[in-house]
Amino acid sequence: MTLPLGYRYSAAYAGIRKVKKNDVALIVSDSPASAAAVFTQNKVQAAPVRIARFHLTQSRGLVSAVLINAGNANCATRTGDRVAIACCDAVAKQLRVPAEQVFPASTGVIGVELDASLITNILPDLIKGLSPKKFAQAAQAILTTDTVMKIAHQKLAFKRRTVRIAGMTKGSGMIQPNMATTLGFVMTDAAIAPPILSAMLAAAVKRSYNRISVDGDTSTNDMVLLLANGASGIQPNEKERAHFAEVLSQVLEDLAKQIVRDGEGAHKLITIEISGASNEEAADRIARGIANSPLVKTAIAGSDPNWGRILSAAGNAGVPFDPSKVDIYMQDVLVCQGGVAAEFSEQDLKSKLDERECSIRLVLHGRGTGGARFWTCDLTEKYIEINASYRT
Amino acid sequence: MTLPLGYRYSAAYAGIRKVKKNDVALIVSDSPASAAAVFTQNKVQAAPVRIARFHLTQSRGLVSAVLINAGNANCATRTGDRVAIACCDAVAKQLRVPAEQVFPASTGVIGVELDASLITNILPDLIKGLSPKKFAQAAQAILTTDTVMKIAHQKLAFKRRTVRIAGMTKGSGMIQPNMATTLGFVMTDAAIAPPILSAMLAAAVKRSYNRISVDGDTSTNDMVLLLANGASGIQPNEKERAHFAEVLSQVLEDLAKQIVRDGEGAHKLITIEISGASNEEAADRIARGIANSPLVKTAIAGSDPNWGRILSAAGNAGVPFDPSKVDIYMQDVLVCQGGVAAEFSEQDLKSKLDERECSIRLVLHGRGTGGARFWTCDLTEKYIEINASYRT
Repeated sequence: MTLPLGYRYSAAYAGIRKVKKNDVALIVSDSPASAAAVFTQNKVQAAPVRIARFHLTQSRGLVSAVLINAGNANCATRTGDRVAIACCDAVAKQLRVPAEQVFPASTGVIGVELDASLITNILPDLIKGLSPKKFAQAAQAILTTDTVMKIAHQKLAFKRRTVRIAGMTKGSGMIQPNMATTLGFVMTDAAIAPPILSAMLAAAVKRSYNRISVDGDTSTNDMVLLLANGASGIQPNEKERAHFAEVLSQVLEDLAKQIVRDGEGAHKLITIEISGASNEEAADRIARGIANSPLVKTAIAGSDPNWGRILSAAGNAGVPFDPSKVDIYMQDVLVCQGGVAAEFSEQDLKSKLDERECSIRLVLHGRGTGGARFWTCDLTEKYIEINASYRT
Repeated sequence: MTLPLGYRYSAAYAGIRKVKKNDVALIVSDSPASAAAVFTQNKVQAAPVRIARFHLTQSRGLVSAVLINAGNANCATRTGDRVAIACCDAVAKQLRVPAEQVFPASTGVIGVELDASLITNILPDLIKGLSPKKFAQAAQAILTTDTVMKIAHQKLAFKRRTVRIAGMTKGSGMIQPNMATTLGFVMTDAAIAPPILSAMLAAAVKRSYNRISVDGDTSTNDMVLLLANGASGIQPNEKERAHFAEVLSQVLEDLAKQIVRDGEGAHKLITIEISGASNEEAADRIARGIANSPLVKTAIAGSDPNWGRILSAAGNAGVPFDPSKVDIYMQDVLVCQGGVAAEFSEQDLKSKLDERECSIRLVLHGRGTGGARFWTCDLTEKYIEINASYRT
């Protein structure tokens, strides 16, 4: 694994979660990095989301350190802002960077006060532990109900010189027992100014994090942060930036798909593709409607080629289309042609749907060329079991 | 049970469903009844929805007979319209009423051709069996995965004379294994003209059928039909109409709640009440957002007073409000005050949440007085089990 130059990582156990497993992580850029971030659209936003947004504005898009804790979302609490600010201030003082260059993030239970001293007490150890090699340790520390670590990385060659991108993320989908958060942190050693970086991140998120769903719930703490510290000495030109943006999208798509694959109780990754919609937004809404239909998700769990549920979910997306023109493919088998049943072997298709990766493809044959790709997972009994349990 | 005057009912087994259980029902009004109907908003609409809508326009809101089949939705098939028309024509001929006064309805699997002769062959028997007393038999015949029959009735006294309302419905919520339909048929012997009847039905549906959800899926066949044949000899005046409209709403609310209570795999009926929203639509969207959150529904299944999920789901509804002003009650216990945790006994509340009826109440303390009431059910493993099974 080739990591971007100029970043150091650290992780420690601060005692926020009951299980003794690292619950704080620190990412430090040796020089202030250009930063771009996207945040949850939920009207209820956690304190770290507010403070991170504020710091990013104050610093004009520069980040020197990212402080992340798991086990407590620092959301819907009396002391939320104060706790986030106190922790950032402590990091700033000990690293000797401006406070507004410290970016806070939290994930965990909502509505429980977070004790700042748990974090500030462990901070000297956390800083002492900083190392360019502890990327995986940091990626482990930010997990909550995740069953696997989620990282992705790529290299790009520009005129015999190399630029690196590496990212870590967490989340068992949008939904988790008490800790409702998806976080993503992506580092690169390319030199890219904040406004360009923001545009790149927005485009990449649109194709990745914004196209996944486990059950349609958006958390109060979601955020994806992209840092570019320029440590590679390379400032991509316009053509190179297009290439960089494409690879960045691949990294984010890789991370996002890892979240869906690890969706609570999920056995299968479902890829939904729409084409021939009036425009991209219409395609996205139809894909999203299918992805969030429990009818469709349980059918896939049961390997049932029940295309009527898919057609009905599409019809429910609030987007006009002609049902009598719709073709539906499952695992590349035509199951519905012109809105009515196609001829196919149900038994063969059932076997194909037993695979870990399932595809649903709708060709709307409308007037437009709007398309969208969306990822979701199947809905199983295990999901209910996980989410109906008491918080203990 | 006092049934409205001037209606007769019948049920028979036509062989549409595999299990030998009545699968066709006929409702006949002795004189052409004023009719009002609401239909699914799904872009994919079943043939009987199209034909029913067309007949209602052609007849200027008069219905003499309602023909309902279960076991096949007559949706997304090659012959859908022809089958619905052939069946209506046969009923019209044998009852000697205009074809446009026959109202068709279907519920069952999508995408499978329906054989019209199954219905036309049984029709003579069905007509022979017509009786004012076979209301329950008809109500039984329209069920699919429902575990209980769903009927409601009321009497109203106007100046020592009586008007009656009786309704039947089906559905295990919006979602069902392969047969995705909710149907409702409500009869009254009051005399009310079609345009007034339509307005009354729209208002009543808004407060009942449009405020329930099992999982947010709207089917291709949903419809609610209201008939008023005037057999009581009473034409309510304006003041009496207000009373009638109120009682009609109660009947529909009763029927709608029976659907939620019988939601697939559901153990609990959840009532969600919102107040202090900017307007009624905002309140409705927040209530709907909470009702459709798997996080909230699984928490209630597990008797977990996890109010953070409720607040997060509200924040996700796309409606602006101030989270720091929100109070949340569960089973009338204040669990969140001003957006943060209130003091309550978690153990006591858990016991209270074990009851079969659960309430969630949000007071937004916003500038408006918008309120909404919404009903949903908990989400259990049984739901997945039912829906992930093969169609057999």
